[in-house]
Amino acid sequence: MFIQGKPYTSIWYDQITKKIYYIDQNQLPDKLMIKELQTIQDAIRAIRVMEVRGAPLIGVAAAFGIATASGPLPKKWEDLKGVAELLAARPTAVNLRWAVERMQKVWERDWTSDREMTGALWKEALCIRQEEIDRCRMIGENGVKLIEEVYQQTRRPVNIMTHCNAGWLACVDWGTATAPVYVAQERGIPVHVWVSETRPRNQGTRLTMFELQEQGIPSTLIVDSAAGHLMQQGKVDLVLVGADRIARNGDIANKIGTYLKALSAKDNQVPFWVAAPSSSFDNRIATGHEIPIEERDPAEVLGNNDKTKKWQAVNPAFDITPAELVTGYVTEKG
Amino acid sequence: MFIQGKPYTSIWYDQITKKIYYIDQNQLPDKLMIKELQTIQDAIRAIRVMEVRGAPLIGVAAAFGIATASGPLPKKWEDLKGVAELLAARPTAVNLRWAVERMQKVWERDWTSDREMTGALWKEALCIRQEEIDRCRMIGENGVKLIEEVYQQTRRPVNIMTHCNAGWLACVDWGTATAPVYVAQERGIPVHVWVSETRPRNQGTRLTMFELQEQGIPSTLIVDSAAGHLMQQGKVDLVLVGADRIARNGDIANKIGTYLKALSAKDNQVPFWVAAPSSSFDNRIATGHEIPIEERDPAEVLGNNDKTKKWQAVNPAFDITPAELVTGYVTEKG
Repeated sequence: MFIQGKPYTSIWYDQITKKIYYIDQNQLPDKLMIKELQTIQDAIRAIRVMEVRGAPLIGVAAAFGIATASGPLPKKWEDLKGVAELLAARPTAVNLRWAVERMQKVWERDWTSDREMTGALWKEALCIRQEEIDRCRMIGENGVKLIEEVYQQTRRPVNIMTHCNAGWLACVDWGTATAPVYVAQERGIPVHVWVSETRPRNQGTRLTMFELQEQGIPSTLIVDSAAGHLMQQGKVDLVLVGADRIARNGDIANKIGTYLKALSAKDNQVPFWVAAPSSSFDNRIATGHEIPIEERDPAEVLGNNDKTKKWQAVNPAFDITPAELVTGYVTEKG
Repeated sequence: MFIQGKPYTSIWYDQITKKIYYIDQNQLPDKLMIKELQTIQDAIRAIRVMEVRGAPLIGVAAAFGIATASGPLPKKWEDLKGVAELLAARPTAVNLRWAVERMQKVWERDWTSDREMTGALWKEALCIRQEEIDRCRMIGENGVKLIEEVYQQTRRPVNIMTHCNAGWLACVDWGTATAPVYVAQERGIPVHVWVSETRPRNQGTRLTMFELQEQGIPSTLIVDSAAGHLMQQGKVDLVLVGADRIARNGDIANKIGTYLKALSAKDNQVPFWVAAPSSSFDNRIATGHEIPIEERDPAEVLGNNDKTKKWQAVNPAFDITPAELVTGYVTEKG
């Protein structure tokens, strides 16, 4: 998608320099800073400090981190330095494990040389990246129908509410929750997006508003707490959010505050849709209760004020939205 | 209540200097700045820019503003300069109108001299102030039973969640939602308060955490979006919030985000109580739909960043919580 009129993806392999580059998302929207991912340690750090974030992108960055491993390579996967750390860099999104396990399967094939193996690892990482792009595009194709239906009925811009950033920056391109919005734009369906700032890290303000504005999509920022009021006023046609992990029963883990939006959507008969690629579904767990919820640094909530930083805070990064509050799931398959 | 170990109220008349002083709440928690309220224009400005805020305190500040009117005084109330502006300074809280109308009644009695009339106006304003203190204290006495009941059952600190600042800073002393907490402390009932930061003006962080910390009450800060998650985890025994206006059917207007907390409380069987003095009940309106919702400056949401401040935002300051989500109301009468 576009930044300053130029097409970008959140992470890419440069054919000429033969290097991996990504956008440092902690610098947005002020600075477009491009960084290089050279080692598995780079990937761990970038994921942990959230220079790269968003479930699908975390998976892709982890895959590239593993692909950068250079010789002499250990025979056993377990001996690859950093793998345990990489898997633990962020606990909630399942895509991280999913991508790492795909790389592990390649690693554990019978290789005759390090070179052959490295080539296969790179190929797999590039393939994971391309698949995420394709999946997001398909989510867009499938999800646009929901927007189109509202437009057919109302013949006015469709008001979509989202939370956090499930945009192309969270993925590689297109995004999950935003993909249907971008496809709607392509097809000339007028849309307007309500963006909640998403405390404490303000991904809504810094990333989603930025994305949509750069792409020329009408969007309005609100505080997280205003979501219910707007729905009460009939100003929201549908909610579209992403997911960091989806349990077998359909419970979803997503950015803290998603559950409150889902409750309010139900109370106001607003459809609540979850857009996510198949890599976010975790068939190993039965319900949302089993999804680990990351607790982040209280300083993100307390700020750096001399007085407030001495106080106590808790900072859960995700919450669980029970399946019964979800109208449906948009995936690359439908 | 205490600041740095010294007792304060949010607004007071000094017998020696014969002046009205108030705490500038925009400076908290960094600076304890005391300002003087000298004219009705001072009151209008202080209310508008939220140096004084909170439904009961707005009413008291308005009453003092009118009391400062000095001769020659117009015969007709309508000719008193600034009254219309004062009434419009903030639209949602009904206490403002309630207090101004009490002052109007005094004004419109048959007075033989300006001096006599001014004396009566001062007396009425001081009386309104004292009544708010007494009402809050009684809310505390009545509300502490809710906390005590939980404590009798659990024998562990009672976890109370509040929103915004319905503390003594929002009133004159004691507060509404916090009064039961302070009375519990007096009685040795252990409590812990979950404080939501309350975007976009952070009254939870700046005022409620500050109040509770100065008073020595255990409290933990969260982002507004985390309220649902904590309730899902069973970490909240009851919710106690204030109200800016209560309609005849029991619908309440309170700080934006209150509705989401109420929905979540209901979904998790957490009692949701509204603490408010009788001055917040508006018998002239039937339901919450009729309560005007203040729209504040989008800049409060967009911030002062070169990029973000050019974007679009909406900033409703209150939302309506329907009566069916309210477990009950704690007033000075019970």
